[in-house]
Amino acid sequence: MKIALSQINTATGDLTFNTQKMVQTIAQAQNEGIDLLVFPELSLPGYPPKDFIFTSDWFTQQEKKIQEVRAASAGIHVILGVIHKHENKIYNAAMWMDRDGKTTLQKKRLLPNQDVFDEKRYFAPGDTQSVWQIDQERIGISVCEDLWAPFFPQYTVDPIAELAQQKPTVMINISASPFVAGKDKVRKDLVQNHQKSYSCPFLYLNLVGGNDELIFDGGSFAMAADGRLLMQIKSFEEDVLIFDTDREALDIAAYPEDILEQKKHAIVLGLQDFVHKSGFKKVVLGLSGGIDSAVVAGLAVEALGAENVITVFMPTQYTRDISEIDAKSIARNLGTRWYELPMDEVKNQLQANIATMLERTMQSLTFENMQARIRGVILMAVSSEENALVLQTGNKSEMALGYCTLYGDMVGAISPIADLYKHEVYGIGKLLNQDTEVIPARVFQRAPSAELKADQEDTDSLPPYDVVDPIVRMCVEEGKSVEEAAAAGYDLAIVQKLYGWIENQEFKRKQAPPVLKVSSKAFGVGRRMAIAKRGYAD
Amino acid sequence: MKIALSQINTATGDLTFNTQKMVQTIAQAQNEGIDLLVFPELSLPGYPPKDFIFTSDWFTQQEKKIQEVRAASAGIHVILGVIHKHENKIYNAAMWMDRDGKTTLQKKRLLPNQDVFDEKRYFAPGDTQSVWQIDQERIGISVCEDLWAPFFPQYTVDPIAELAQQKPTVMINISASPFVAGKDKVRKDLVQNHQKSYSCPFLYLNLVGGNDELIFDGGSFAMAADGRLLMQIKSFEEDVLIFDTDREALDIAAYPEDILEQKKHAIVLGLQDFVHKSGFKKVVLGLSGGIDSAVVAGLAVEALGAENVITVFMPTQYTRDISEIDAKSIARNLGTRWYELPMDEVKNQLQANIATMLERTMQSLTFENMQARIRGVILMAVSSEENALVLQTGNKSEMALGYCTLYGDMVGAISPIADLYKHEVYGIGKLLNQDTEVIPARVFQRAPSAELKADQEDTDSLPPYDVVDPIVRMCVEEGKSVEEAAAAGYDLAIVQKLYGWIENQEFKRKQAPPVLKVSSKAFGVGRRMAIAKRGYAD
Repeated sequence: MKIALSQINTATGDLTFNTQKMVQTIAQAQNEGIDLLVFPELSLPGYPPKDFIFTSDWFTQQEKKIQEVRAASAGIHVILGVIHKHENKIYNAAMWMDRDGKTTLQKKRLLPNQDVFDEKRYFAPGDTQSVWQIDQERIGISVCEDLWAPFFPQYTVDPIAELAQQKPTVMINISASPFVAGKDKVRKDLVQNHQKSYSCPFLYLNLVGGNDELIFDGGSFAMAADGRLLMQIKSFEEDVLIFDTDREALDIAAYPEDILEQKKHAIVLGLQDFVHKSGFKKVVLGLSGGIDSAVVAGLAVEALGAENVITVFMPTQYTRDISEIDAKSIARNLGTRWYELPMDEVKNQLQANIATMLERTMQSLTFENMQARIRGVILMAVSSEENALVLQTGNKSEMALGYCTLYGDMVGAISPIADLYKHEVYGIGKLLNQDTEVIPARVFQRAPSAELKADQEDTDSLPPYDVVDPIVRMCVEEGKSVEEAAAAGYDLAIVQKLYGWIENQEFKRKQAPPVLKVSSKAFGVGRRMAIAKRGYAD
Repeated sequence: MKIALSQINTATGDLTFNTQKMVQTIAQAQNEGIDLLVFPELSLPGYPPKDFIFTSDWFTQQEKKIQEVRAASAGIHVILGVIHKHENKIYNAAMWMDRDGKTTLQKKRLLPNQDVFDEKRYFAPGDTQSVWQIDQERIGISVCEDLWAPFFPQYTVDPIAELAQQKPTVMINISASPFVAGKDKVRKDLVQNHQKSYSCPFLYLNLVGGNDELIFDGGSFAMAADGRLLMQIKSFEEDVLIFDTDREALDIAAYPEDILEQKKHAIVLGLQDFVHKSGFKKVVLGLSGGIDSAVVAGLAVEALGAENVITVFMPTQYTRDISEIDAKSIARNLGTRWYELPMDEVKNQLQANIATMLERTMQSLTFENMQARIRGVILMAVSSEENALVLQTGNKSEMALGYCTLYGDMVGAISPIADLYKHEVYGIGKLLNQDTEVIPARVFQRAPSAELKADQEDTDSLPPYDVVDPIVRMCVEEGKSVEEAAAAGYDLAIVQKLYGWIENQEFKRKQAPPVLKVSSKAFGVGRRMAIAKRGYAD
């Protein structure tokens, strides 16, 4: 029996797009003699589920699309992911559409509701696990989290164990498992651990593609009953895995080993999909001559092509010559379009007007932020004129500490590198330079600066990034207390100061663009904090 | 037995502030001979719960505060709301601290996870309901949602019914029930319906105060066993209800009848608390001479006092004389500080610079948005100089359709009226004029305009608001399909157009300030939509 795992790239809430993609794939599979074609979790509505399913006619619309898939799938077994409504309950389900069009459901049992997941907002859990007899095979199907029972102590049932008791000949898990660096290995370990108890071939199908913050890395695989990896298809792009139950074959596409390389692939995919799924082709960003915007430009060129990346240089009197030289080199090396707008005139004019209004000279911090915001206004004008989405160029370290200007350098439709610490941004920069130097060496060496006043350096306001980065990680990703972070070898007063900043800057992050998630805890939907919580003023 | 329901205003995540408030209240209650003092749901950690509880030492910190409350409460029974951790599970619980310091827990059974609620992200459900013998009374305690089983068909247990079987002499529900216009009546109906089956006196204690988007309206009440309303304390402010089980008393503070008046009270409270709990006293907003900013200014003056409200007028060549006259009248009538910054110079300068850079004149829409964004830059400078939070002045109708400029008029720390349709903004304007006219009559009569180009009116781009408002409501609040909305008497093409706009403007709302929620469905945490979902570009 030939089983095809179709690792497709769906769009959340776009029933028409997802249906077309599945119908096309079914036609190919029919031509290639596939017996059973499998699509990822929620392949029809797209993942993640969102509140669009609460519109009164949504299930009617989905039913029409199910009929379209059914009409296209004569003669082939298809398993797809749907949202099933029965009485007052809604389920996340795998639907088996047999070759005569009859349908059978396996409802998802374990519903993730931590971090970025909201499945309990939408779904009720299924309560049984069944093996499906499809032709000569006994297929044990499970949906994503159902694989993860051994991983989370709060789960009291193990759907895979229940399946195993029913003696399947093949197990298949359909997932929409968001990328986190290093997770590919965790998934394989999980499957192998299951197989130690229930020796049975196991097919793992993951979604691929970006949907807002979430990036699905694909990397679907097949494991023999004894836990040997037999096949793995591509990561970070669409692909198909064909598993023949009658003939063991070995075909393994490597999943990138290096954590930073994984993150780079993920960001390129997430950025590409965010732009395309928003209906755009082009992006625009401010290029400062610093590492952050250089790396975002490099990633954007990989994702969208140099012809679709516009770089804008907006110098003031505080911009050093080397910034202009390096920014120009980066744009030239990458082949991006170059715009330049010297903004001293506007800056001075606005500064003078505001001083007149307030009857005093504004403070330095006000003035610095004002400059960053003028840049935001210019970038949004270019965005509008060029039909290009603005890319926000901030990193995780500055987003954590609030070392960024709301409505200024925080302007953007998407934040590609806001889940990378400053040191990781340098690391990705080196990866971008691997074949030919696109980012000049000086950009890596010079001290980071916002260049919003004379001779400014980040370390005027912040501890050095080799102190900032680990403290931010302990706070944001690891949930460590102030005392624990200090015990890791940092000055208690500095830890307290940084923790305080992180807590107080929630108001900025509330209004930040979506952040492409590549770590275990990114800013955005997976981290839900109160904004007004600094106690009453005196 | 004298039971006091202490309707306090807590701050989310501020253990110190909430503990101090409870300790002070306990001292008063001891002086006044109260036997049992009751605080609202999660009174110690604050409501709503957020991810701060995932910091490794959070429960240790809470335990210290529980000890502080215990140390202060000798000789009096106290019921407070805490987060309880046991093994791998976390519960939302009512804690009874008896007069000797011994504690007993009642865990919340039903965990709301729809709309703005995320309780299943944090809590496991309790599984039993117990009556507490406190002195001569048998107290049946329940937590918020546990009252609502008859209201939601998905619930399969009814904690109040379980309590009733144990023959309590008084039932108490401790809630943190967010304000929605008209909800006070629903709560009373719920309690009365329960009482038809289980005749028993019922005390309903609600939280009061604003926490980010959510506003808790208080309005706690006591009902006799036969369902008569005996006592109701104040709404939208702190108050205490003292119920003597030995002596029936009648004392009913009116809850505002009028829906718009309710919303006005809620917004004033929510705005006041957002500003104060953020550690600020002052606010600043752009006054245009139109109804939206006039109403926000009026509400801000009620919430914070005229001395804490700064109004900035930023005219261009497109600003009509009557706008300036009316804006000045509003500021004078309200007594707010007045700043004026004519911005043609800066606007023309920036327009020319961008034209030079792009080598063409920008389109009208780009130019209009650019002006709105310059206003945003100016307001943020005033904010920084005056230590005043910016108030965003958009309404729900324009936020729905995206008739607003991201980083322009969408700038702000909080959106006080973004859950009011345009017609409701006029209604609140009339309420503000009830005693003396603060908003000139002309502001109500003239056609709404953004004044971003010559002779602009909203109806150049939008259908009239008496068409927009009901269609937005059907889409956003009622989840009606396009066909259902058209069937309510609207042109199908217009409904389709507006529904499309609402869907496509998600990217703006992602970056909007928090919206004070007063309707059944506000933009923000209670409405979770995908951003990039307009299908692939060709």
